[in-house]
Amino acid sequence: MKTSFKEISGSVIAPKGFLASGVFCDIKRLGTGKGSDKGRKRDLALIVSEAPATVAGMFTTNQVCAAPVKVCVERVKKGTARAVVINSGNANACTGKQGLQDAQEMVSYAERALNFPKGSVLVGSTGRIGVTLPMDNVRAGIIEACVELGSTRERAAHAIEAIMTSDTRPKQIAVEFKLGGKTVRIGGICKGAGMIQPGMSTTGARPAAMPLHATMLGFITTDAAIEAKVLQVALREAVAQSFNRITVDGDMSTNDTVLVLANGMAGNRNIEHRTSNAELRIFQAALNHVCLELAKMIVRDGEGVHRVVTVRVNGAKTVADADAAARAVANSPLVKTSWHGGDPNWGRIIDALGYSPAKIVEEKVDIGYSSANSKTILWSLKRGQPTKATFKQLCAVVAPKEFDLHINLNFGPAGAVIYAADLTEAYVDFNKGDVGDPTTLGG
Amino acid sequence: MKTSFKEISGSVIAPKGFLASGVFCDIKRLGTGKGSDKGRKRDLALIVSEAPATVAGMFTTNQVCAAPVKVCVERVKKGTARAVVINSGNANACTGKQGLQDAQEMVSYAERALNFPKGSVLVGSTGRIGVTLPMDNVRAGIIEACVELGSTRERAAHAIEAIMTSDTRPKQIAVEFKLGGKTVRIGGICKGAGMIQPGMSTTGARPAAMPLHATMLGFITTDAAIEAKVLQVALREAVAQSFNRITVDGDMSTNDTVLVLANGMAGNRNIEHRTSNAELRIFQAALNHVCLELAKMIVRDGEGVHRVVTVRVNGAKTVADADAAARAVANSPLVKTSWHGGDPNWGRIIDALGYSPAKIVEEKVDIGYSSANSKTILWSLKRGQPTKATFKQLCAVVAPKEFDLHINLNFGPAGAVIYAADLTEAYVDFNKGDVGDPTTLGG
Repeated sequence: MKTSFKEISGSVIAPKGFLASGVFCDIKRLGTGKGSDKGRKRDLALIVSEAPATVAGMFTTNQVCAAPVKVCVERVKKGTARAVVINSGNANACTGKQGLQDAQEMVSYAERALNFPKGSVLVGSTGRIGVTLPMDNVRAGIIEACVELGSTRERAAHAIEAIMTSDTRPKQIAVEFKLGGKTVRIGGICKGAGMIQPGMSTTGARPAAMPLHATMLGFITTDAAIEAKVLQVALREAVAQSFNRITVDGDMSTNDTVLVLANGMAGNRNIEHRTSNAELRIFQAALNHVCLELAKMIVRDGEGVHRVVTVRVNGAKTVADADAAARAVANSPLVKTSWHGGDPNWGRIIDALGYSPAKIVEEKVDIGYSSANSKTILWSLKRGQPTKATFKQLCAVVAPKEFDLHINLNFGPAGAVIYAADLTEAYVDFNKGDVGDPTTLGG
Repeated sequence: MKTSFKEISGSVIAPKGFLASGVFCDIKRLGTGKGSDKGRKRDLALIVSEAPATVAGMFTTNQVCAAPVKVCVERVKKGTARAVVINSGNANACTGKQGLQDAQEMVSYAERALNFPKGSVLVGSTGRIGVTLPMDNVRAGIIEACVELGSTRERAAHAIEAIMTSDTRPKQIAVEFKLGGKTVRIGGICKGAGMIQPGMSTTGARPAAMPLHATMLGFITTDAAIEAKVLQVALREAVAQSFNRITVDGDMSTNDTVLVLANGMAGNRNIEHRTSNAELRIFQAALNHVCLELAKMIVRDGEGVHRVVTVRVNGAKTVADADAAARAVANSPLVKTSWHGGDPNWGRIIDALGYSPAKIVEEKVDIGYSSANSKTILWSLKRGQPTKATFKQLCAVVAPKEFDLHINLNFGPAGAVIYAADLTEAYVDFNKGDVGDPTTLGG
């Protein structure tokens, strides 16, 4: 399908009627136990819709699930919301009853400060696990964030900064498209950058067939008019092809959350049913693009990541097999270190395929490399046998910062794609690092 | 049970009637493409019994399985053998029909050189995957190894050196015990040190319930008289509690193999049936000890390993759950880097438990630390809540080179132990390393 959208600037404030802010409330500084102002970082963000919005969400399927996730799962069920309050520096995970009470106070405090009805504010947290929130700081931050709300790019940039933990770069996107003559926009921001292999579902419950797979948080806004149930199905589809297809370190977080708020201020005809109408297809394509681009930004800025590899498995017996095969390769320490070294080491790849739960037959497997998104594949292995491609030729294809790995199991009709990263000394150094630094923990 | 054996020296030549040798035949040098004599390493070993022996084996369950494994699986079925020929520097894996032909030639060439009957020699290989063996070198090596055979410690040390790849230290053990008044001995050698998470079975086929889990090779000799079927059951039990309980990097190799040869020269009454007789219990305990100590040596000398952690999970619903929970923790990059950093980070541990396939409930989980093999546990988390143990106290327990991690899911009766290692910059540096160096690849 030809894309019918274009990228624009402005992230979450690009759609009509959205405001954002990001402030300092010293959650991160408390976490480090450091008293100086040096390195003080924004750590509380607010995203607000000027009009009531429909809402959809996807949440971690980790059995250990943070308090803000529990609060959101329940609230998203209602289908409407007005705002999201997010803190970084503390995940409010494994904090028991106090944590749940704190998450509930975050939303109710924001509701009162914004003069919004009960149940209309959502919440997200990321940072160290197992420490209760400094609620005095959080309350002061919420008040200040309400005062600071605005629809300028500066305010959006503040919100992005306030949700970052180990991220080194802001992650944002916005797109614009037409629905029935009306201009509609979708904007999004997100954060990574470790404990990244999301496996999110609508309710946080793990479907039986779902592969096991960070903290990643994603917040999407749109001025489209779309019914909550339709929005939820659209988000599930978009996340299945994006955030749930990435891995940095294979560790699934307790806090992974993606939320979409749709306030209808674009004035398009309300998208009401999951029918194959043209408007929904256009909206879905735009939402898919927003989610996929944000997801790829997380991998590119993953902790210590030097190379990004798109693992494309085809010819599997089932989609579950294709996914399992791709994840076995994408999470193998030996494969990941070889990528770091620029080594087109297919031996380690076929080894990982062999121990994956996917059914494979050595004598059928093809392994090749291409430039990112290119269809010109240099095969290193065909039907289990090394090709005539030279080591030097293969090294040239895997030398760039991004490349694609192509695996054909030649066994069946199913395929899967995983966006993966290498494993570097920088990752190890960062994560063994300063034990008192809350940014070293996803969550 | 009180141990009824004592450790002695001599490894595989400690039992009566065994000879060993290890020679240079330049398989490793060819692999590196380096022509100089500098760093020349022994790379072909031979272990020979003077009398016909019963045999048992356990083999990788990787679907991509090396040619020597295929040859051994068939030969072990007969239950008797006389010798094992092993090369390092080349795994003879993913080498197709030529590879299988080469493995078969290795055993038949050794049989002719030793003047042994057809089918009486076994074979093992480890090193780079996907390169065919330099058979001229292998043949010359076999001839030289036959000439060099001896029962001195020096010869045994040569054999150990010849099976090493990325190992930095020789791994060997021998024990002595009494069976019905006769002195019986078991000796063993093994190698690691990357691509280590063995999951071996008798036939190389993966049992449905078997957890998915390096190249490790282990060769055990004994002068006990024991029937092949009984020996096979005993080996399976010993491996289940040792080699199949270790992980360095979570990558299961194409070549994992453990073989035992029992030549009966101790003159004990033949252990004929899998009955609960005292002799079998004594033999089993000694074999278990040999396998467990060798397995732990592999973890301690794992690639880049600084710390060894014994992960003890209890209170799981099922043994499969206990195993899955322990492996999720033991293979989590974030948990492993925290171990490297000396960080008693229970947040990452409970996160890994939460995404493991094991059923857990956050509010039931206990997490604690102790000195290696100590029962004095300092709990950091009890029933999902942080204890009063201070960060400093916890850091002190995880500071030594080896410690135990205790996890109680408080959910059921089942337990599992996994011997695990930290993830260090040295592991990454080694494995991204010199792409032409065959020692960088398990296999």
